[in-house]
Amino acid sequence: MPYVNIKITREGATAAQKRELIQGVTQLLQRVLGKNPATTVVVIDEVDTDNWGIGGETVTDRRAPGR
Amino acid sequence: MPYVNIKITREGATAAQKRELIQGVTQLLQRVLGKNPATTVVVIDEVDTDNWGIGGETVTDRRAPGR
Amino acid sequence: MPYVNIKITREGATAAQKRELIQGVTQLLQRVLGKNPATTVVVIDEVDTDNWGIGGETVTDRRAPGR
Amino acid sequence: MPYVNIKITREGATAAQKRELIQGVTQLLQRVLGKNPATTVVVIDEVDTDNWGIGGETVTDRRAPGR
Amino acid sequence: MPYVNIKITREGATAAQKRELIQGVTQLLQRVLGKNPATTVVVIDEVDTDNWGIGGETVTDRRAPGR
Amino acid sequence: MPYVNIKITREGATAAQKRELIQGVTQLLQRVLGKNPATTVVVIDEVDTDNWGIGGETVTDRRAPGR
Repeated sequence: MPYVNIKITREGATAAQKRELIQGVTQLLQRVLGKNPATTVVVIDEVDTDNWGIGGETVTDRRAPGR
Repeated sequence: MPYVNIKITREGATAAQKRELIQGVTQLLQRVLGKNPATTVVVIDEVDTDNWGIGGETVTDRRAPGR
Repeated sequence: MPYVNIKITREGATAAQKRELIQGVTQLLQRVLGKNPATTVVVIDEVDTDNWGIGGETVTDRRAPGR
Repeated sequence: MPYVNIKITREGATAAQKRELIQGVTQLLQRVLGKNPATTVVVIDEVDTDNWGIGGETVTDRRAPGR
Repeated sequence: MPYVNIKITREGATAAQKRELIQGVTQLLQRVLGKNPATTVVVIDEVDTDNWGIGGETVTDRRAPGR
Repeated sequence: MPYVNIKITREGATAAQKRELIQGVTQLLQRVLGKNPATTVVVIDEVDTDNWGIGGETVTDRRAPGR
């Protein structure tokens, strides 16, 4: 019954990679806490690099060439 | 003053259906807890089926034909 | 499969009221969008009034007597 | 190490404005609580006006001309 | 830089188990997407069983003896 | 109408500090985006250091003496 929300920057994660994340987190919760995989929900949010900040600046700016 | 976040898979919910969800949740909070509708905020997130996992697999995979 | 998060101030909502919220939201999603109640997850967060702000001030301050 | 999530309606916030929000929130957490800016994460979600409700109606409806 | 939020019912997860969840999710994101562990944030929320609903009822009710 | 969620570790933030955070974020959204303070909602979550992970370990472990 756990609910997991994964937020990452939108940078081309493939369907296969998302599938692997969902499977991996679900298995982790089963292994560590005995949670039932059938009712484990995982939601992945992909966020534009303009909308993600760390260290007081956007990821877009941190990755700008010439910096 | 409540805040409600509804996450659903992105599968063509119409503007009318979203309106009905927002109205219904707001009324529910007023009826059950006496919350003021004027300051009740509802945010609906529609999530791609590749990004939603249940039972360790993506909704895209669960709905694949031939399964 | 929807996931709903309801945030309210912590002011003595009873188990019966929370039960009613969970039931009401689950039924709403079934009625409006045909969502399966069996996999609809609802999580209620109760937040201290010191930790909830609206209009630039805490709910604690808004409710202070003599204001 | 704080995590801040800002949800606003999608109405044309510019990259410069988002940069300013991220910088401002990060500085606020440093000034008020002494939090390290290097590990402060800020995520901005822009939400369609059809998906945002207040007062029991969508923002789209509240802004409809002729109302 | 990912941010992960894990919500589980409050049922006595130990500090060791939480440590294992945090480590496991961080490694998963590094392995699958190459994300830097140093800036991966994981937040675990433990939710009272009265406040968690599935199938239209609270977890407290689902676990009541005699059912 | 914005909604802001601030998550910090639970380490004794005072009511005065939370008040200052709420006021500061609300003013920032007004200044940068012209958002109406009256309907700006801010929710602060304080999270136990056992439940917060960064760099693959809990904040409790990172702060343990002798490290």
